[in-house]
Amino acid sequence: MTHPSQHPAQQQAPQPAPQQTQQPDGGAALQQISANRCFGGEQRVFAHLSVQTGTKMRVGIYLPPRASSARVPVLYWLSGLTCTEENFITKAGAQRLAAELGLAIVAPDTSPRGLGYPGEDDAYDFGTGAGFYVDATAAPWVRGYRMYSYVAEELPALIASAFPVDPSRTGIFGHSMGGHGALTIALKNAALFRSASAFAPICSPMRCPWGEKALAGYLGDDRAAWAQYDATALIESRGWKGPPLLVDQGTGDTFLASQLKPELLEAACLQAGVPLNLRRQEGYDHSYYFMASFMEDHLRFHAANLA
Amino acid sequence: MTHPSQHPAQQQAPQPAPQQTQQPDGGAALQQISANRCFGGEQRVFAHLSVQTGTKMRVGIYLPPRASSARVPVLYWLSGLTCTEENFITKAGAQRLAAELGLAIVAPDTSPRGLGYPGEDDAYDFGTGAGFYVDATAAPWVRGYRMYSYVAEELPALIASAFPVDPSRTGIFGHSMGGHGALTIALKNAALFRSASAFAPICSPMRCPWGEKALAGYLGDDRAAWAQYDATALIESRGWKGPPLLVDQGTGDTFLASQLKPELLEAACLQAGVPLNLRRQEGYDHSYYFMASFMEDHLRFHAANLA
Repeated sequence: MTHPSQHPAQQQAPQPAPQQTQQPDGGAALQQISANRCFGGEQRVFAHLSVQTGTKMRVGIYLPPRASSARVPVLYWLSGLTCTEENFITKAGAQRLAAELGLAIVAPDTSPRGLGYPGEDDAYDFGTGAGFYVDATAAPWVRGYRMYSYVAEELPALIASAFPVDPSRTGIFGHSMGGHGALTIALKNAALFRSASAFAPICSPMRCPWGEKALAGYLGDDRAAWAQYDATALIESRGWKGPPLLVDQGTGDTFLASQLKPELLEAACLQAGVPLNLRRQEGYDHSYYFMASFMEDHLRFHAANLA
Repeated sequence: MTHPSQHPAQQQAPQPAPQQTQQPDGGAALQQISANRCFGGEQRVFAHLSVQTGTKMRVGIYLPPRASSARVPVLYWLSGLTCTEENFITKAGAQRLAAELGLAIVAPDTSPRGLGYPGEDDAYDFGTGAGFYVDATAAPWVRGYRMYSYVAEELPALIASAFPVDPSRTGIFGHSMGGHGALTIALKNAALFRSASAFAPICSPMRCPWGEKALAGYLGDDRAAWAQYDATALIESRGWKGPPLLVDQGTGDTFLASQLKPELLEAACLQAGVPLNLRRQEGYDHSYYFMASFMEDHLRFHAANLA
C-alpha cells in the first residue's frame, strides 16, 4: 500500500464535504468525516472539539437500521494501545450483529493527539494512542490527557444530544488498555453504564509494567492515587451490582502473564461477591482475530442486559 | 498509530520464527508469516518465492475447523487496487461464515513487489498493488507482472500441495480490479473454477480509464490483445456453463458510472444466455463496509455451488 492518499479500493466512503452540525442546545459542533452504509445501517466517523482534551477528537458511531425510527441502546467500545477510532470499526466485524440487535456502537480515539508535549510520541505505551482512560494530574499531561472524563461524561452527553440513542440503556466494553478502561469506568459510573465486558483487559494496572508506567506518568508516584483506575482495586472498594461481568481472554495471548493477569480480577470478584464470567479461550491471541471470534457473544450479552 | 513496529493492541499474532516448509514433492518452500486462531480455525499468512513473478509473494489463507479432518472446498479472493493480502483477511469479516460452512479462503497479494521498474510505484492504479491479473507482454512488465498465471495456475497448485483443500471444489471471487480478475480467470478456466462472484467488478476494462491505462501499459497498444482480459468480451467469446454468476454493486459507489459499468456485463450475459444475478445494493459504496454487508451471501453462494 504505497499511496495512502489515493486508495480507491480501500476507500472508506465517498467523502462528503465537511459538515458542521450545530446542536439545538448550542453544544459542540460535529464535523462528519465519513458515512458508509453497512448492514442496512450506517457507519459514521465524526470529529469534534473536546472540552476535556482541548483537541479535536475523532469518534466512530455505528447506527443500526432501527435507529432511523427509535432511540436504541448504545455501547461504548474502548480500544487498546496504539489504536485510533478506526481499528474497531474496520476489524471487529461488530456491525452485523449491531444491526440485527439494534445497538448503536460508539468507538472513540484512545488519546488526545497533537498536544505537542515532550515525549508524547516517543513510546507506543504512553502519550499519543495510550491515554489509559485516566484524568492526568501530573504536568504536562494534566492539560488534555483527560480520557476518563471524556469517555465517562463528555462523550455520552454529546452522543445523547446528537444521535437517536437511549442513554438509560448504555453499556461499555473494550480491549486490553480499553478493557481496563471499560471495567474501571463502568465500576465508577454504574448508574450510567449498566453492562460491562472486556476482551483481554489489563486487570490490574497497578501491578503490571504497562500500567505502572502509565499511572506513574499521568498521576505521579503516589500509588494511593492509582487505585481509582485499577479494576481489581475498584471491585474491592466499590463492588458491582450490575449484571455479571463478561471477560474473554485468549490462552495464547503473549501479554497474558506479564500484563493482563485475569487471575487478579477473578480473585477480587470472588472475594467481593461480584459475578464474573471469565472465559479462557484456548489458543487465541491478543489480535482482532480473537475479538472478532467472540464479538457476537459480547453483543448478545449487552443486548440482553440492556433489553 | 505512530509506531508500526510496536503495536501490541494490533498485534496480528505471536510471531513464530520464520518456518521453511519443504514440500514432499520438492516444490516451493512456504515461509509462515503469522498464524492466528480465528472462529475455531486459523488465519495464516505465508510467503513464498513465486516462479511466475520471480518475487517473494505473500498470501493469506483461512483454514476452517473442518480442515483439520478433511479436505475442504477452497475460494480464491482477489483484492482491488492498492490492496495487499491483508485487506480482505482483516476487514471482510469472512472467517465466521467460512468456519461455519467449512471453506478455505486464499487471498493473495495484488502484484509483485520490489521489482524496481521505473514508474512502478508512481501511481495507485498501475504497477505495485495494481497487477490487474494479467500476464504482461510489454517491457519491462513482461518479467514478473504475471498475476494471471500466478492466480490461475501457480497458486492453486501450491495451495493444493500444501493445504488440506479439495481442488475439485474451487471457486473465485473478488472486488473491483479483483472482481475483474475473478470473472476473467473463471471464464477462462472453468474446469478449475466452478463458481464465481464479484463485488463492484471492473466489468469491461477495455472501456474504462483504469482498464485502458493498465491494459495499454501491460499489453501494449494493440487492443485486440486486451479482449482476453475483458469479462464482457469473454462472456461473448466463451460463454459460461457454470452456475449463475453473482455480482453485487452498490448504487452509491463513486466509481460506478466511470469505471465499473455493470450494465455492460449485464448486456453481454443477456446476449450470450449466461445467467447473471446482478444485485444493485441501494446506497452502498466501494468500501469494505459494503463488502462485509453482503459477504455472507457470497460465501453461501459458493458453498452451495461447491457442495
